[in-house]
Amino acid sequence: MLEKTKRLTLVEQVALQMESLIESGKWAVGMRIPAEPELMAELNVSRNTLREAIRALIHAGLLKTKQGDGTYVCSASVLGVVLQKRILRSDTLHTLEVRHALEREGAHLAAQRRTSDEANELLLQLERCEAAAARGDIDGFVTEDIRLHQSIVTASHNEILIELYDHIAEGSQDSITSLTRYEASADLLGLHRQMVEAIIDQDADRAVAAVHRYIAESKAVLEAKGEGRL
Amino acid sequence: MLEKTKRLTLVEQVALQMESLIESGKWAVGMRIPAEPELMAELNVSRNTLREAIRALIHAGLLKTKQGDGTYVCSASVLGVVLQKRILRSDTLHTLEVRHALEREGAHLAAQRRTSDEANELLLQLERCEAAAARGDIDGFVTEDIRLHQSIVTASHNEILIELYDHIAEGSQDSITSLTRYEASADLLGLHRQMVEAIIDQDADRAVAAVHRYIAESKAVLEAKGEGRL
Repeated sequence: MLEKTKRLTLVEQVALQMESLIESGKWAVGMRIPAEPELMAELNVSRNTLREAIRALIHAGLLKTKQGDGTYVCSASVLGVVLQKRILRSDTLHTLEVRHALEREGAHLAAQRRTSDEANELLLQLERCEAAAARGDIDGFVTEDIRLHQSIVTASHNEILIELYDHIAEGSQDSITSLTRYEASADLLGLHRQMVEAIIDQDADRAVAAVHRYIAESKAVLEAKGEGRL
Repeated sequence: MLEKTKRLTLVEQVALQMESLIESGKWAVGMRIPAEPELMAELNVSRNTLREAIRALIHAGLLKTKQGDGTYVCSASVLGVVLQKRILRSDTLHTLEVRHALEREGAHLAAQRRTSDEANELLLQLERCEAAAARGDIDGFVTEDIRLHQSIVTASHNEILIELYDHIAEGSQDSITSLTRYEASADLLGLHRQMVEAIIDQDADRAVAAVHRYIAESKAVLEAKGEGRL
């Protein structure tokens, strides 16, 4: 029994070591991991231990075996995999509410903590949104709008908020694309400008008020479309 | 290669089956899972497949092997395990900010969606907090305060919000206990009452305003104590 426990611990150690190579980006998403003999030498473990650790990471959703073609990194974060699975089982309206909660906090903290470089970048990013909307480029607008929201959350300098937001935004991207298209309306563009200007002015209350209004508008659209079930 | 791929898929299926037994609570936290022969018969798989699936769940943090004493369920949710690990690596102030984002959204939605039973329960729970504070029972207050916040989030009827909040609150419980002790102050009790009454009155804006104020007070305490690093 003692031996078995030890062996499991070694597998766990090897799995955690590979997990941190993946989370740090040294093993990037899309990369094929080194061949077995190389990994066995590098990590100084047996073939069985290595295989078992790899299987644990496959179960965790970080690695994927392509038949006859080795093992690839398919996700950089266990939290991302788990959250995205959870979002698949969730109501669109509910996911949007969580997303909005994080956006509101992000805007609030960004107003307090943004650097001057970040302030400049936010204004540029807002202008990219407005330019895409002005030339009627809906796909371009969707892309720039997502980037704007991510830049705001990034300026919060809160790592766990940033991580949760990125995973939830990514996991809910398909379901909200149609909603974002609507956001190109003049009203919502105006609210986005108010939000960005408030963050630049370091006025947290005004930033949150603007977020609050575009959230209310977005939810009204979603509810009108009957996509939210309560 | 084909055979290997198939076998991995079977392991994955067995792991997912056990995962859903755990997440549904049929295999409750603290329970010892059935012995190998029983599981092999029930799931109709070989010993190797079963062991590998169990190891994947050990890596995921749902099961734990006690030396010489079988395998036990140690957590009901992969999301919970992953979030709690993530919180351990986070700054207390940052975790508190995420928690507050979810509390604010919870109060907002609870004001819109609470049933009348939930309204009664919230008032009772608030009175339990107040009674504990009045008799100087700090530990009692901490417990009742956590329950109050959970009841509010539950009244949002947003499953993913509830789940995230529960895991983050659980993961950050130790680090915020000292903070919650402070919350027994008359000011913060008053803000809690304002929040609960606004939810009962279905006044979302007033509820959010009260949350906003106790958050500002809590953060001021944390920052004064120098526990948040920015």
